[in-house]
Amino acid sequence: MLQDQLQNKINSKTKPLGALGLLEEIALQIGLIQQTTQPFIARPTIMVFAADHGIAETGLVNPYPQSVTAQMVLNFLNGGAAINVFTQMNQLQLIVIDAGVNANLSHLIQPNFIHAKQGMGTANYLLTKAMSTDLVLSSMQKGKELVTEVSKAGSNCIGFGEMGIGNTSSAALIMHAITGIPLAACIGRGTGSNDEQLNTKINTLEKVAVMHQLHTLGNEPMQLLSAVGGFEIAMMVGAYLAAASEKMVIVVDGFIATAALLVAVQMEPTVLNYCIFAHNSNEQGHANMLQYLKAKPLLNIGLRLGEGTGAALAIPLIESAVAFLNQMASFEQAGVSTASE
Amino acid sequence: MLQDQLQNKINSKTKPLGALGLLEEIALQIGLIQQTTQPFIARPTIMVFAADHGIAETGLVNPYPQSVTAQMVLNFLNGGAAINVFTQMNQLQLIVIDAGVNANLSHLIQPNFIHAKQGMGTANYLLTKAMSTDLVLSSMQKGKELVTEVSKAGSNCIGFGEMGIGNTSSAALIMHAITGIPLAACIGRGTGSNDEQLNTKINTLEKVAVMHQLHTLGNEPMQLLSAVGGFEIAMMVGAYLAAASEKMVIVVDGFIATAALLVAVQMEPTVLNYCIFAHNSNEQGHANMLQYLKAKPLLNIGLRLGEGTGAALAIPLIESAVAFLNQMASFEQAGVSTASE
Repeated sequence: MLQDQLQNKINSKTKPLGALGLLEEIALQIGLIQQTTQPFIARPTIMVFAADHGIAETGLVNPYPQSVTAQMVLNFLNGGAAINVFTQMNQLQLIVIDAGVNANLSHLIQPNFIHAKQGMGTANYLLTKAMSTDLVLSSMQKGKELVTEVSKAGSNCIGFGEMGIGNTSSAALIMHAITGIPLAACIGRGTGSNDEQLNTKINTLEKVAVMHQLHTLGNEPMQLLSAVGGFEIAMMVGAYLAAASEKMVIVVDGFIATAALLVAVQMEPTVLNYCIFAHNSNEQGHANMLQYLKAKPLLNIGLRLGEGTGAALAIPLIESAVAFLNQMASFEQAGVSTASE
Repeated sequence: MLQDQLQNKINSKTKPLGALGLLEEIALQIGLIQQTTQPFIARPTIMVFAADHGIAETGLVNPYPQSVTAQMVLNFLNGGAAINVFTQMNQLQLIVIDAGVNANLSHLIQPNFIHAKQGMGTANYLLTKAMSTDLVLSSMQKGKELVTEVSKAGSNCIGFGEMGIGNTSSAALIMHAITGIPLAACIGRGTGSNDEQLNTKINTLEKVAVMHQLHTLGNEPMQLLSAVGGFEIAMMVGAYLAAASEKMVIVVDGFIATAALLVAVQMEPTVLNYCIFAHNSNEQGHANMLQYLKAKPLLNIGLRLGEGTGAALAIPLIESAVAFLNQMASFEQAGVSTASE
C-alpha cells in the first residue's frame, strides 16, 4: 500500500519512468524505512571505529606498522584525514571511536571522540583466538549503545567506517567463512602491499583458516568473531543491528565495513532492508561481497581507503534521492504532457 | 614539473598511494587545468540548452509530443524539474537557454533564462537538412558567448545539459557518423519508448543516415550538424569549445551532451583535457561513446534523464577531489608512519 503510494509518487514526477535509475530505488527504500511518502535525511553521521589487530605485529599481512592506527586516530582528531575533509564538505557529523587501539589514548578528550576500548588490540590469531566471546559481546553491545545514542540525538542516516592496520585480513577471513568464496578471492592487497607481500598474506591467512577451522564457523557468528574478528568489526556488527532496530538509513562503506555487515545480516537478515551501498571498493573481494549481497553500489571510483570515506562521498546522492521525491513537480502540477500510448 | 609537484602532493597525503582512486586523477587533472598545486572550484554552473527537433513532429522517434520541450522549460523556470532540485541541493548555479524551442517564450523574463532562439525547432531531417550551416555557426557562436560570460562572472566549473524531445535521435546519428559504430548500437530508447517504438526509431534513423550520406560526414562536423544536428547540440558544441578556451573544468553529462562533445573534440581535440565524465547513462550507446573517448565516468546509477542531472549529481565528488588535495594532512604534517619497504 505505502509501496504503491511511493511508486506512484515517483512515477508522477516530471521525468520518464525510471529515468533517475538507482535514485528512484533509494527514494522508495527510504520511504519504506521511514514509513512515509515524505521521507527526510536528518543529521547524517559517519562513525569511525578504530582498533588494532594482533596479526599486524607479525608484519605478515600488512606493510604499515601497527602504530599507524593510533597515529591515524590522532589525524582524525586533528582534522587531517580524508574522512575529515569529506564529512566537512558534505556537512556530516563525524564520530571517532577507540574500539581497541594498541595505545593509551585516554588523555585525548574531544566531544566527538569516544573511548570504548575493549583491549590493546586483539590477540594474534596465528597463535590463538583474536578475542574471547565475552569481548565479542561487549564490543557488539557498545556498538549498539553508541548508535542508539546517535539516533536519539536526531540522526536517521548513518555510515560506519574503520581504521585498523591489518583489518582487511580479518575481513577476508570472515567473508570466506560466511560466503564460502575461496579465500584467495577474498584477499586483497589491503593498504599498499606489493605482489610478494600479497602472496605472504594469502599463505598466512590460509594457515589461519585451517587452524581455526573456519569452514565450520560459517553459521557461528559469535565464534567466528572470536576466532578472527577485530574489536572495530565486532562493534560495527552491533552498530548495524542497532541502526536497523532504530530504523535508520544505513550507508555501507567498503570491504571491512561490508564484512561486518555480513555478520550482522547473518544474525538479523532484515538489516539489509536498511542498507544502501555506497561504492564498489577497489579492494579485491569487495565486488564478490557485493554480488553475494545483491547490492548495487552508487559509486565505482576505485576507492580503497576505508575510514567511511565511500559512505561520506555517497551521502549527497542519497540526499538528492530524497530531495527529488519531495521537491520535484508532478506532471499534473507542472502541466507537462505524459507519453502518448 | 607541475605534474610531478601535484603527484607528489597527492602521494604525501595520509592515505595509501592511489587509495582515493578516480578522485586522485581528478585532483591532478584540475591542478593541471588551473596550472596550480592549489586548485579550487568556483561558482559551479549547469547550463541547460533547450530546443526542438523537426523529426519529433513525425512521432516516429519519440513517444512524447514535441510540446513537452516548452512545457519542461516552464518547469525549469518554476523550479519543479529534477535539475532544479539537484542544482539547489548541491548549490550550483542553473542557467536555462532557449536555443530553439518551437514555442514563443519571449514573454518569460527571468534572470537565469536566456533567449537565444535560433528558430522554431529544426527542420525534419527525414525531408531536408535540419538547419543551414549559417545556423550551425550562429548557434555555436551563441554557445561560446554564453560560456564566456559565465566564465567572466567567476565560474570555473561548468556542466551542460539539454532538453529537446527527439534529441536522442540526433545524438545517435552524430555518434554513428563520427565514431563509425553501427547505428543500431548508437540508438537507445530515449525517453520512455517501448520495443515497437524502438524498432520504428531504428528503421527511421537508418533511412536518415542513408539520405544524408552520414558515412561521408564523419570528418565534416559543420555539415554533420547541418544535416542532423539540433540547435541545442550545436550551441553545446560552441559551449565546450569556449569552456576549454577559458580553461574551465567541464563536467560532461549524458548521451546528448556527450554527442555534442564528440563534435567539439573533433574540432579541437584538446577540449578533452578539460573534461570530467559525470556518469554512465542508462541510454544505450552512451557506454560505447564513453569507451570511444576512453572516459572513466564517476557515477553508474542508471540515469537517463538529461537536463544536466548527471553533471549536477557528480559535482560534489569533484569538489571533494579538490578539497582532499588542499585540506588533507601529509604524512609529515600528521606524524604518520609510511609503509615499510
